[in-house]
Amino acid sequence: MNQHQTAFEGVASREVSKVAALDIGSNSFHLVVARILAGSVQIVHRVKQKVRLADGLCEDNILSQEAIERGVNMLKIVAHSLQGFEPDSVRIVATHTLRKAVNAREFLEAAKEVLPYPIEIISGTEEARLIYSGVAHTNHVDGKKLVVDIGGGSTEFVIGQGFDPLLCRSLQMGCVSYTQRFFKSGALTAKAFKQAITAAEQELELIEGKYRNLGWSQCIGTSGTIRTLCNLSQQFRSNSHDIPVTLKCLMQLMKQFIDAGHTDNLTLQGLSDDRRTVVAAGLAILIGIFKALKIESMTFSAAALREGVIYQMEDELNHADIRGRTASSLATRYDVDTNQANMVLNTTLTLFDRLCGPWKLRHRDFRSMLGWAALLHEVGLQINSRGVQRHSGYILANVDMPGFTQEQQELLATLVRTHRKKIRAQDVVAFFQYNSDSVKKLIALLRLGCLLNIKRQESFVPEFDVEASDNSCTLRFPSGWLDERPIMAADLALEVGYWQPLGLELVIA
Amino acid sequence: MNQHQTAFEGVASREVSKVAALDIGSNSFHLVVARILAGSVQIVHRVKQKVRLADGLCEDNILSQEAIERGVNMLKIVAHSLQGFEPDSVRIVATHTLRKAVNAREFLEAAKEVLPYPIEIISGTEEARLIYSGVAHTNHVDGKKLVVDIGGGSTEFVIGQGFDPLLCRSLQMGCVSYTQRFFKSGALTAKAFKQAITAAEQELELIEGKYRNLGWSQCIGTSGTIRTLCNLSQQFRSNSHDIPVTLKCLMQLMKQFIDAGHTDNLTLQGLSDDRRTVVAAGLAILIGIFKALKIESMTFSAAALREGVIYQMEDELNHADIRGRTASSLATRYDVDTNQANMVLNTTLTLFDRLCGPWKLRHRDFRSMLGWAALLHEVGLQINSRGVQRHSGYILANVDMPGFTQEQQELLATLVRTHRKKIRAQDVVAFFQYNSDSVKKLIALLRLGCLLNIKRQESFVPEFDVEASDNSCTLRFPSGWLDERPIMAADLALEVGYWQPLGLELVIA
Repeated sequence: MNQHQTAFEGVASREVSKVAALDIGSNSFHLVVARILAGSVQIVHRVKQKVRLADGLCEDNILSQEAIERGVNMLKIVAHSLQGFEPDSVRIVATHTLRKAVNAREFLEAAKEVLPYPIEIISGTEEARLIYSGVAHTNHVDGKKLVVDIGGGSTEFVIGQGFDPLLCRSLQMGCVSYTQRFFKSGALTAKAFKQAITAAEQELELIEGKYRNLGWSQCIGTSGTIRTLCNLSQQFRSNSHDIPVTLKCLMQLMKQFIDAGHTDNLTLQGLSDDRRTVVAAGLAILIGIFKALKIESMTFSAAALREGVIYQMEDELNHADIRGRTASSLATRYDVDTNQANMVLNTTLTLFDRLCGPWKLRHRDFRSMLGWAALLHEVGLQINSRGVQRHSGYILANVDMPGFTQEQQELLATLVRTHRKKIRAQDVVAFFQYNSDSVKKLIALLRLGCLLNIKRQESFVPEFDVEASDNSCTLRFPSGWLDERPIMAADLALEVGYWQPLGLELVIA
Repeated sequence: MNQHQTAFEGVASREVSKVAALDIGSNSFHLVVARILAGSVQIVHRVKQKVRLADGLCEDNILSQEAIERGVNMLKIVAHSLQGFEPDSVRIVATHTLRKAVNAREFLEAAKEVLPYPIEIISGTEEARLIYSGVAHTNHVDGKKLVVDIGGGSTEFVIGQGFDPLLCRSLQMGCVSYTQRFFKSGALTAKAFKQAITAAEQELELIEGKYRNLGWSQCIGTSGTIRTLCNLSQQFRSNSHDIPVTLKCLMQLMKQFIDAGHTDNLTLQGLSDDRRTVVAAGLAILIGIFKALKIESMTFSAAALREGVIYQMEDELNHADIRGRTASSLATRYDVDTNQANMVLNTTLTLFDRLCGPWKLRHRDFRSMLGWAALLHEVGLQINSRGVQRHSGYILANVDMPGFTQEQQELLATLVRTHRKKIRAQDVVAFFQYNSDSVKKLIALLRLGCLLNIKRQESFVPEFDVEASDNSCTLRFPSGWLDERPIMAADLALEVGYWQPLGLELVIA
């Protein structure tokens, strides 16, 4: 893997003193600003704004115009706080609601107008991993810890040890969506609680065995819902603050809610107006979790997703990019022929370095994405060598890829899906942060890298010249080289035709 | 795996004295009749009929009406030879042309009218495996052998040792399709040969490294094209028959062809009129193969696909069903949790045995297919636990499954793809030999088997009663069992709804 690592050493090492992370959640937006000093993180500023985006998501997963406006107005306010930040110093992640919304692009388009930083929609598993990172950097626990984060639309479960998440999962239940399903009228009945708790237990049924088998020595909850429930539980304890929550406290709390009869009557100390309408659903979910996972007690941690994003940025600044680890571990898991992968990688990045200027391939992700695509383009061999490109694409589109955003993962899947054979129009999807011409150029580069190494022989590819203009690339091999290799010559002649749907011209001189 | 094996011991052991195999090839149809005596096979009868089905396949893969008629007329003649054979004693396989034809079903429908046995369309890899089996049972070779079979539409390559194929591959080049591409006018020019040879070498480029790395000690060719080329090569040898063909002989033959200038002028001894039009394409393909794989010499074996089919039938009669081995080896390769798989298998087959009567599930494949689906329904966990049913379906639809026909493989893929969650209309494809109501019933049975074992705990599933009518099934659990398990009760209540698109009723009593 040495060749692969050196190939990426071009990533710049800048000293950044201030970073910001914004978490576009289903219930609230959270902004965190931090200073990074000699590798340590100082949180300097936190802002939370209730937006309740998940409320605007209807049954067929369309996000309402009204919710989009609400969200974008909030981003306008956030934009003020971010003035003067370098693009590399800000990371914005969006979770469940934008993951689900079929019209998420509308939101992103509108956001682009008010906020000059890209919004990354992350997968549930990635969300879980980042939450764990936030907690792991903040709370020290000996042995394994279970981290639970109840959000507006999804709930994350992670078991990890030290800084390493071992089991990450996101389930589709959250305090906003469960309020709509079980507590819409505001009535707090024993029956509604029973239904909501059972639904939560059903969600957990598929993972509970795995989690209980792995086990943990301490359980930690994060985010607003659990914070509120922890605070409310303190009333049942006479002599101490900050003692862990138990199932018994939660059942007492439920009884209190049912006695109150309606959310409007909940006037407990520590319960904000904002939280009042969704707290019952959160309580039912937490009870379901305690029961299914047989949790004895849970403590609260103030760190969560946005802190995880900050620590991830710090890691990246220190060259410990988790995505490289993810790619290597996939290559191992799928028994990739790393010799071949590295030959393809070297040829592809050589081509990239010569063409990125004339072809205007400027996005900072491109070089590394192309490298990872080269490393992983044959994972599909594990399913079948016939149609390997389809199988590699399928795997990379569906496997968990810690550290990659959804668009980055989709770009990787697109590149490997088109690494050989005919390219169909539907193979090249539209991206939000990558323009389609650039994606086609990356496809062309990976294809050339693969094709030139089709013999799978070290030092088969000779030194060659590359000339390029806007949409064209001319390859010139040493004189006589192609004449002695008529099969490669015929392959390259075929490739000229394959480039046509990409709108690119390949010339073999 | 013991539970799994015993679960299948219901397969009947009948003594069959006469079996027949028909190979519906792209160039010819071949019928072989054999007697099986005490486990050994005596071929008693072979018939070959030139049909050249591949000629009727146009560029968009529609098989012409004229070709369908030609084929079906030939089947009428074959039907005579098969009178009196038991259904279990006849196996009919179809290869490249029907694999490719988008309207293959039309052919199958018309064939059904004249021939009372099902036609199985087999994959290229399966074809390669069967060819190898035919050769392995006929030619003894110490060490590894490479078997090459040039057909009308595809060419198969297998390296094996003893009776075990180690590497199977089918490439889309054949003497009929290459005649259309390179020798359509009948002109035999040096240029046409060069193009055809290069095209063959390009096809081989992706596999040559793998094959040459594995290596072989003897190379054997099968089928009519190679037989003819072997015969024609003998003219260049003064003193002996049946000596192996070398690249040198083939190049001399090509020179002779080019000198003749046109297929009409080919009047060599040993060249039938039938073969004359396609022999040049076959020669070019064989030269390409010799060059790409660096074959030194090749001998001819008269055994081929149909003999392989016969030997496979004999194996199945002796209970050594290769499909069981395939399923077990996939389960191992994809790290299936076999404890869980066996629990699901037992529940599912218990349900099947009670319901197959009232639900009229009579096809002889059903019980074993359901068992294999139970064994393999979680292979997709290897990609992701989210959407595991989709991933399992994808893998089983795309992986090589020795011994399974395309429809059997598609049935397995369909069953695992629908083993949980909502069933979409497009999930249940139309089959030719399985009626759609039965497939839906199998889906329902596997789902129940999975759901009842969702806890992944031994002895969680109690003894239960099953009552059934035409399209309905009533499950009765021991009194109180469900009351103590409200999550399972809620799951079963959901499952009632999931059965609606299947047209089936689930009642929990």
